[in-house]
Amino acid sequence: MTAGPYSGLKVVDLTRVLAGPYCTMMLADLGATVIKVEPPVTGDDARHIGPFIKKKSAYFMSLNRGKHSIALDLKATADRDVFERLLAEADILVENYRGGTMEKLGYDWATLHARFPRLIYLAISGFGHTGPYKTKPAYDMVVQGMGGVMSLTGHPGNPPTRVGTSIGDLGAALFALSGLGAALYHRERTGEGQKLDIAMLDCQVALLENAIARYVATGHAPGPLGSRHPSITPFAAFAASDRPMIIAAGNNQLFARLCDAIGAPELAADERFKSNEARNQNHAALTAALEAALSKRTADEWIKIIEAAGIPCGPINNVEQVLADRHVISRNMVVTLEDPDVGRLKLAGNPIKLSSFSDSSTRPSVPALDESGTAIRERGFKAVAP
Amino acid sequence: MTAGPYSGLKVVDLTRVLAGPYCTMMLADLGATVIKVEPPVTGDDARHIGPFIKKKSAYFMSLNRGKHSIALDLKATADRDVFERLLAEADILVENYRGGTMEKLGYDWATLHARFPRLIYLAISGFGHTGPYKTKPAYDMVVQGMGGVMSLTGHPGNPPTRVGTSIGDLGAALFALSGLGAALYHRERTGEGQKLDIAMLDCQVALLENAIARYVATGHAPGPLGSRHPSITPFAAFAASDRPMIIAAGNNQLFARLCDAIGAPELAADERFKSNEARNQNHAALTAALEAALSKRTADEWIKIIEAAGIPCGPINNVEQVLADRHVISRNMVVTLEDPDVGRLKLAGNPIKLSSFSDSSTRPSVPALDESGTAIRERGFKAVAP
Repeated sequence: MTAGPYSGLKVVDLTRVLAGPYCTMMLADLGATVIKVEPPVTGDDARHIGPFIKKKSAYFMSLNRGKHSIALDLKATADRDVFERLLAEADILVENYRGGTMEKLGYDWATLHARFPRLIYLAISGFGHTGPYKTKPAYDMVVQGMGGVMSLTGHPGNPPTRVGTSIGDLGAALFALSGLGAALYHRERTGEGQKLDIAMLDCQVALLENAIARYVATGHAPGPLGSRHPSITPFAAFAASDRPMIIAAGNNQLFARLCDAIGAPELAADERFKSNEARNQNHAALTAALEAALSKRTADEWIKIIEAAGIPCGPINNVEQVLADRHVISRNMVVTLEDPDVGRLKLAGNPIKLSSFSDSSTRPSVPALDESGTAIRERGFKAVAP
Repeated sequence: MTAGPYSGLKVVDLTRVLAGPYCTMMLADLGATVIKVEPPVTGDDARHIGPFIKKKSAYFMSLNRGKHSIALDLKATADRDVFERLLAEADILVENYRGGTMEKLGYDWATLHARFPRLIYLAISGFGHTGPYKTKPAYDMVVQGMGGVMSLTGHPGNPPTRVGTSIGDLGAALFALSGLGAALYHRERTGEGQKLDIAMLDCQVALLENAIARYVATGHAPGPLGSRHPSITPFAAFAASDRPMIIAAGNNQLFARLCDAIGAPELAADERFKSNEARNQNHAALTAALEAALSKRTADEWIKIIEAAGIPCGPINNVEQVLADRHVISRNMVVTLEDPDVGRLKLAGNPIKLSSFSDSSTRPSVPALDESGTAIRERGFKAVAP
């Protein structure tokens, strides 16, 4: 296992598929010991979601490295005993069931808190444990739609566009991980465990960022803007001779330097483009003028020239290009899992780089279903201590 | 100020614009005392970014509630003295300069750690403090392009599409907030402060989710898919008679129930749609068949029917609809700032809901530039203690 700031922390993990497993994977990457409690026979649904490599889910492998697995039926008395013994040892319990499920299992917060006063209980659900939608089911796609990000993403007039990664789940996972840190800090100082009620929809609202300010200031709900930033111009994708590239000239000084660098200094003097506000209003004319100049070279050529002038810019990389990028590799953002079935597998590293801990370039692979079941039943967390 | 798990925590905040200020706003929402150190005269650039209400930036207000402001020139000896006295009191120093800036100011990590051994130092930058791009400038738009999310977002064949919120900045803010929790926990147990080096680009890689698994499994870089999920079908936006809506039927049982609910039970028996894998392969035919049925009623009518059948679904809300949603309001995800210049302002709440703390429906507004400058120069953090 990985040594980190959460080394020694014991996590009982009931989560499935994405938001919860991503959060507990980060806990494992930060040193925690995570026991994944899965339903017997089928295990986590993510084990059955593609893509597969040698019949093993790469999707599951991307979310569960470094965890330990035990299969328990939480409706069976003997298995509930095992589960409760784990809770007595644990610092954190995490689940991402639909609201109401833990109550049905007899593990409501009042009961948990009375029996395990130091236990921190993290519940992640689509809509949270209060409010009119509290028992509704949700997936990433539903909260992307309901939470507003889809209304801001895409090109005007086009069909609805999903954010290409599961930001509904991952946003919740990161607020949950942040909240856990705060709850652990509070417990270190007071001894008190508490419950975190994280709703995927809430997290989408918190990530709407300046779209809320724009609505509040103008009374108009903002729409999608393609690749443009809503209030900074030029700050978008622009076509070079071969392919589009990103240019982000966020203020007048950078804009003037950009105009010089691309051989169009007259643009900086143009009344239509003299301030960010003017550029924002005349963005279509500015895009046409910039792309006329940019059409004379390739994106790679322009990136060198514009970067040398000190202006933030860059390519639009696909996943293959991202994973091959020398900076991404140098930051150890591509780590290797050694899997007994699949062999070596490259996956994303941990972006929390800490000076007190080394950032290993390898990670343990994922557990088979119930791989440590017998040992954990006998010895609890001691069976899987690092 | 807000009482929370981070009450008593002292934060010196050098951050500007977005990633850093969002992170320290969350710290303030969780109870920390945040002193925002701004350059004299101009202050944080975000004060000058629209939209404006009564000449005050709503953008700045959406990122800096509950903080205190002092204007300091970190190149002037007297102001450096004030700054260093604040560091001696502080638990956390946060900055989001370009890599190398703190070294130029004489505040490199070795110096900080030697003088203030318990201080936790959080650096957020575009590319991090190591690797070949470490001194390059970056903005959200640049890391959205370089980090791969733009290659996954949008409709096939369309121009590049930005995620409609600044996920490049906000993703980094949330990994930073998560890392701070871990570093604080470590310090509580060991007394040791440490440095966190958070790169916006690293965070984008960590958020690519199943796109990396798909690339690793197939050798092909995945492309944009409009509103579809890459490996679950049906899980997308579908046109009803009046407007599109979300349906997320993530497994065979939900799919069969969906077909019944929309009056097309024959689809569940169709060989082309008999498994998730088959549905994924035949997604175009399935979309056509589902939309033929869905064209008979409005989105609101279908949402009631499909929801009653227990299938995750929902509307595609714009920001106005999000802020008016009764569940969003009941979860206190729309909070009120009382601002002396602007009056009452509605902004997003805090999605980290904790059982040990109340979640106030109001928040303090933002400080004027150097509002507490004189008091902080005289009394340090005591001047702004809650």
